[in-house]
Amino acid sequence: MQAQETKSMNGLPLDQMFETIAAIKAQPSLARFQFRARNAWIDGGENRSTIQDFYGAGREDDSRTMPFTFTNGEPPVLLGNNEGANPVEYLLHALAGCVTTTFVLHAAARGIRIEELSTELEGDIDLHGLLGLDDAVSPGYEQIRIRMRVKADCQDQEIDDLIAYAQAHSPVCNTVCRPVPVRVERVRESA
Amino acid sequence: MQAQETKSMNGLPLDQMFETIAAIKAQPSLARFQFRARNAWIDGGENRSTIQDFYGAGREDDSRTMPFTFTNGEPPVLLGNNEGANPVEYLLHALAGCVTTTFVLHAAARGIRIEELSTELEGDIDLHGLLGLDDAVSPGYEQIRIRMRVKADCQDQEIDDLIAYAQAHSPVCNTVCRPVPVRVERVRESA
Repeated sequence: MQAQETKSMNGLPLDQMFETIAAIKAQPSLARFQFRARNAWIDGGENRSTIQDFYGAGREDDSRTMPFTFTNGEPPVLLGNNEGANPVEYLLHALAGCVTTTFVLHAAARGIRIEELSTELEGDIDLHGLLGLDDAVSPGYEQIRIRMRVKADCQDQEIDDLIAYAQAHSPVCNTVCRPVPVRVERVRESA
Repeated sequence: MQAQETKSMNGLPLDQMFETIAAIKAQPSLARFQFRARNAWIDGGENRSTIQDFYGAGREDDSRTMPFTFTNGEPPVLLGNNEGANPVEYLLHALAGCVTTTFVLHAAARGIRIEELSTELEGDIDLHGLLGLDDAVSPGYEQIRIRMRVKADCQDQEIDDLIAYAQAHSPVCNTVCRPVPVRVERVRESA
């Protein structure tokens, strides 16, 4: 147990973490990842994704024997039956998780032990955009706010530095904060 | 059954849909929604969100008696044990669902009946960004590609118009394509 303890930090295997960084420095192409999802419409605002395979570290990953499946739905006020959370709520879940993991990862690299970490997110959307009722209104989130509660064995300033670093280096946060191109290609089937 | 059929399109209640639009035109503040998520770190790359309440259409929603819960995890190559899909994969799920629902909604408004709709998404990430190894590399997705397969009772041109419209009006797609500000506020607890 003691040997295990000294080699991990915040639940992350430190040896493997520093080996990964050294491997990427030696062979930069190992850092290239491609993530994937497949989604099928069911009815109305209900649809379902399956997520399993991805490419990374120079190979197709085969660690998952079963796919993850997630169902999007809508509440009654948005014409659904709460078949699942809705897509903009899943986006908040993705953002919360990514900022959290990026924070925990870089805390471990700096030798900061996290005891507790939780976040609360809220984001504002004006349906005039989605419904095409006002071209001046953006359909997406106007702003997203994250309240992060941290308990750790360090000074406040180190926490603030880590928060700023996690915000700048989280892949989902960066995808939200920066304009990322989305290309849609049609594959038509004859009716 | 026939009466039901004539009042819905693509699984969406047409009467309620047009009533909602009329209500928003009469009282624009009904279009303001706030979505929320709460997330708690578990260990390493594992954390869990609960999603239940939101504000919209002029009131706090109370249609969900239980919260939705979702677990983020990481695969072994990213220092985890596949406790769940990872945050950047959840983002693809959110994007797939939002483009799909936006497409289906506006198809219904135009009287286009969808028979089948599915999407495949892939997005590229270079870990140099997340790991802070190269400041010139953005941590987020470089680009996301969506292949959309549609079977519907209309011409190709109408499908293409709908795809372009859905891409421009989907809240998640808009959040990804456009720079959306994310504010992080620290709530420190003493260790």
